[in-house]
Amino acid sequence: MSLTVVGSIAFDAVQTETGKRDRLLGGSAVHFSLASSFFADTRVVGPVGDDFGDEEYAALHSRGVITDDIEHVPGGKTFFWAGRYERDVNLRHTLQTDLNVFEHFQPKLSEDAKRADTLFLANIQPELQRSVRDSSQAQFAALDSMNFWLESARESLEAAIADVDCLIVNDSEAKQLTDEPNLVRAAQKIMEMGPRVVVVKFGEYGANMYTADGVFGIPAYPTADVVDPTGAGDTFAGGFVGYVAAHADEEITDELLRRAMAYGTALASFNVEAFGTERMQTLTAEEVNDRVAELQRVTVFDASPVPLRG
Amino acid sequence: MSLTVVGSIAFDAVQTETGKRDRLLGGSAVHFSLASSFFADTRVVGPVGDDFGDEEYAALHSRGVITDDIEHVPGGKTFFWAGRYERDVNLRHTLQTDLNVFEHFQPKLSEDAKRADTLFLANIQPELQRSVRDSSQAQFAALDSMNFWLESARESLEAAIADVDCLIVNDSEAKQLTDEPNLVRAAQKIMEMGPRVVVVKFGEYGANMYTADGVFGIPAYPTADVVDPTGAGDTFAGGFVGYVAAHADEEITDELLRRAMAYGTALASFNVEAFGTERMQTLTAEEVNDRVAELQRVTVFDASPVPLRG
Repeated sequence: MSLTVVGSIAFDAVQTETGKRDRLLGGSAVHFSLASSFFADTRVVGPVGDDFGDEEYAALHSRGVITDDIEHVPGGKTFFWAGRYERDVNLRHTLQTDLNVFEHFQPKLSEDAKRADTLFLANIQPELQRSVRDSSQAQFAALDSMNFWLESARESLEAAIADVDCLIVNDSEAKQLTDEPNLVRAAQKIMEMGPRVVVVKFGEYGANMYTADGVFGIPAYPTADVVDPTGAGDTFAGGFVGYVAAHADEEITDELLRRAMAYGTALASFNVEAFGTERMQTLTAEEVNDRVAELQRVTVFDASPVPLRG
Repeated sequence: MSLTVVGSIAFDAVQTETGKRDRLLGGSAVHFSLASSFFADTRVVGPVGDDFGDEEYAALHSRGVITDDIEHVPGGKTFFWAGRYERDVNLRHTLQTDLNVFEHFQPKLSEDAKRADTLFLANIQPELQRSVRDSSQAQFAALDSMNFWLESARESLEAAIADVDCLIVNDSEAKQLTDEPNLVRAAQKIMEMGPRVVVVKFGEYGANMYTADGVFGIPAYPTADVVDPTGAGDTFAGGFVGYVAAHADEEITDELLRRAMAYGTALASFNVEAFGTERMQTLTAEEVNDRVAELQRVTVFDASPVPLRG
């Protein structure tokens, strides 16, 4: 029941129509691990600079995240991202990206990190994702990527995807990766590349999962108050992959993966309720289970056949 | 168990990447009625020209659609629309729109059409929707509209919406109508305008329904072969409103409306499998019920709480 995540650790500055924050704990590995920590011991592998201090470590430790594999680069600065969301939070503008210590990040996994039975490769350079996958003994590995690598390193990305059990992408990325506008066909093509589980995220509309057993669709949890969507996708992945990690001693059935999708969806819905990781840091196990139950109430219907006029 | 639909009756010319048709039976009232005919006696109110002949009437009669209220305008031509879909069928280009007899359409409801206990107002000029609603005795009325009327006749449209029980719109229309980018808030604002049921369609991602009881979300049925999406929204509405009409003697509960959403989703998924109304004309009751059952298999998950690390 152990999980390693490799990705970015960041400070984010976020502006929305209703507020702003200058320095939020962020980054894909952070958002992921705060969610996955509800399910499994999670080790974070990623680089930080001198500006990453006790307060940030404490935020991770408070959720039991293992930080032994966080690499401190002396004299360096932590990855910094600044962005602005419009009133329609689907519209995001990047204002500043300083890669800093992330620019030359070469992940080095400790023996404990290698031994984790589940692995998540957040969005980093695909060759690095491959080398981490090679050194990991995980029996289930999932990978996230983004359009940028499709355009600049397609071959490497395709090779990285071939090495994992599960790909988690946005719908536009799934379509671009496969040059296939139909999602069912796009997912089929991705499965032919290697992964046996394909998760396609639709943002405010929900997500689909494709396996050999068929398609699973789940709507997003309906939230009236979206404060800051930053990290929603990584939080979703943390809930989904975390759930799988918690059941690493079981067969990974479609039923198990569907529950994982529900937990990912529930956790993502909390993440957007406040800036950065603020909501995740006060979240309780009971709230998570309650939201999964609510999510089921959102989706349930009676499908017994009715008399129809043929 | 009777239903009146007021809307367009058309000939469509459709081009896709894989084929084309020069003259398909189409129009909102036609697509709607072919779906609703599985549930309730459906009367179509709309205008046609001299070019609308026995073959077209036969297509409607074969599904039991009542055509007594179709208005034949002597010397006129039937509404004609030509469009082209890209390989990504979400991208549609209108090539030609000839309103013809639809341009000066003034709906006149027969006594039987007025007495129907359910009414669907397809996308026509909002003042006409209002006058039809006024003359109808329906206990449940639903309305569809589009961005065009929002821009050109917002006041009339708001008045028409206030007069109905249910609004069925696309997500962009819901957001534009309410100037509210968050869908939960947009639906809340629409309910404050009058309707107690708000259905928001997301195309390939599915649809949500909002009522006082909460939110229901359903994904689209996953279809690998989308041939022609023309009329999918009206077919969805026909399944949804048709289901409500079939149960007009019952209390309209959330559970009933959720089943209606499932039937609308199932019927829309058939409509896109062939050009125009071709698939709907061979569809059987058993296929419809089977697809609703499949749709449930797509959406079901176990939500029993699991032990989490608080």
